[in-house]
Amino acid sequence: MQMDDYKNFINQLSIDCVIFGYKEKKLKVLVTKLKLHGDLYALPSGFIKRDEGIDQAAHRILKERTNIKNICLDQFRVFGDVPRDNSVVIDRIFELNKEDSNLKEVEKDFFLWLKQRFISIGYYALVNADEVIPSITFLDESADWYDIGNLPKMVLDHNHIVAKALEALRVNFDDRLMGFNLLPEKFTMKELQKLYEIVYDKPFRSNNFQKKMLDLNVLERLEKKFTGAANKAPYLYRFKS
Amino acid sequence: MQMDDYKNFINQLSIDCVIFGYKEKKLKVLVTKLKLHGDLYALPSGFIKRDEGIDQAAHRILKERTNIKNICLDQFRVFGDVPRDNSVVIDRIFELNKEDSNLKEVEKDFFLWLKQRFISIGYYALVNADEVIPSITFLDESADWYDIGNLPKMVLDHNHIVAKALEALRVNFDDRLMGFNLLPEKFTMKELQKLYEIVYDKPFRSNNFQKKMLDLNVLERLEKKFTGAANKAPYLYRFKS
Repeated sequence: MQMDDYKNFINQLSIDCVIFGYKEKKLKVLVTKLKLHGDLYALPSGFIKRDEGIDQAAHRILKERTNIKNICLDQFRVFGDVPRDNSVVIDRIFELNKEDSNLKEVEKDFFLWLKQRFISIGYYALVNADEVIPSITFLDESADWYDIGNLPKMVLDHNHIVAKALEALRVNFDDRLMGFNLLPEKFTMKELQKLYEIVYDKPFRSNNFQKKMLDLNVLERLEKKFTGAANKAPYLYRFKS
Repeated sequence: MQMDDYKNFINQLSIDCVIFGYKEKKLKVLVTKLKLHGDLYALPSGFIKRDEGIDQAAHRILKERTNIKNICLDQFRVFGDVPRDNSVVIDRIFELNKEDSNLKEVEKDFFLWLKQRFISIGYYALVNADEVIPSITFLDESADWYDIGNLPKMVLDHNHIVAKALEALRVNFDDRLMGFNLLPEKFTMKELQKLYEIVYDKPFRSNNFQKKMLDLNVLERLEKKFTGAANKAPYLYRFKS
């Protein structure tokens, strides 16, 4: 994103991305630290070009921020209460930018544009965090993964947006499981269960879990995993294509 | 809505309301016929004031269109593909308005404003159709209830919006049941089942249905309904407060 891109964007409408990452057997969220004096955090966000569909915009933003594409990215809710006033935050970013450079008129106009009320469309994705190379924009200082249970306080309603995204992730997880592409091609029921336990943050009982997963009718059972102890070896599964 | 209100609205962002009506034991949708030469139909729509939250705007629009308020009204999806081009429709409405009156500059500007690309937030409600007094705006000729299975072809993606709203209505029906306020204060299990059968457009088996409803833990069982034949009389229920 360049500062003068804003003239090509739809006014007062943004996209906030909740990018969940599966990493070290934990559920994390990609959070950016804003480039200003002091510590302020936000979700990766972006805007919609005048000639661009909203899903297309969300995929572009995800690609810009994570360098991954072809990922399930679902719209889940619009956030448009008043006030959603970010003018104080924008002023603080503007102050720092002013110190760094001699801002041109267009850049001042960009900050004025940013200070308007924005209504934001929330999208969420769940990715393998190790495949992500986080990128930042000129508004950010850094971007890092934070445990879902230990997020920093973010600007505006961004913590609330994450909570709503987590609800949506859980409600749709059975349907979206395959698309998220988080497991190796062949996996055990135990590995799948571990993924569910991390997403839902609760234990499942193995028997119930296995029955539920088989009932979904998306798994194909393969040979047993070679472990040396044949009769205790778990079956391997893969997703039906 | 007045023509010069548009200056107070957020640009390029609209709200489309799918107002489901429960009427004559059928599920219906409120559809407006646009005021132009020929037959063109659309969902009741409106815009968001600059100082108004989106839910607040949706409630205002519902009130303006149905004269009811305090109704469960849920946001369910944003529609923002390109093209969503309504300029041909707007031109046709404009033509008729031109014949009716000498349009002032502000009114011409309004039609230009309307011809922009709009991203639309979908909201749905389910109301007792008999409690609704449909109102129209100056863009409409009439507003009527149509059976969900027999909707007219509407402008843009409005038929698709109804399909998505119906999915959302069904997914959330257990949770929203009470809020929709469609049954008399005391009702029989049979009456409740009928409502479900209409919303889901399929029969339920009485035993399974009763078990499911009791498991939801929202019903309080009352005395038997007086029918004259005491031992065959069904129990009455009401929602727990």
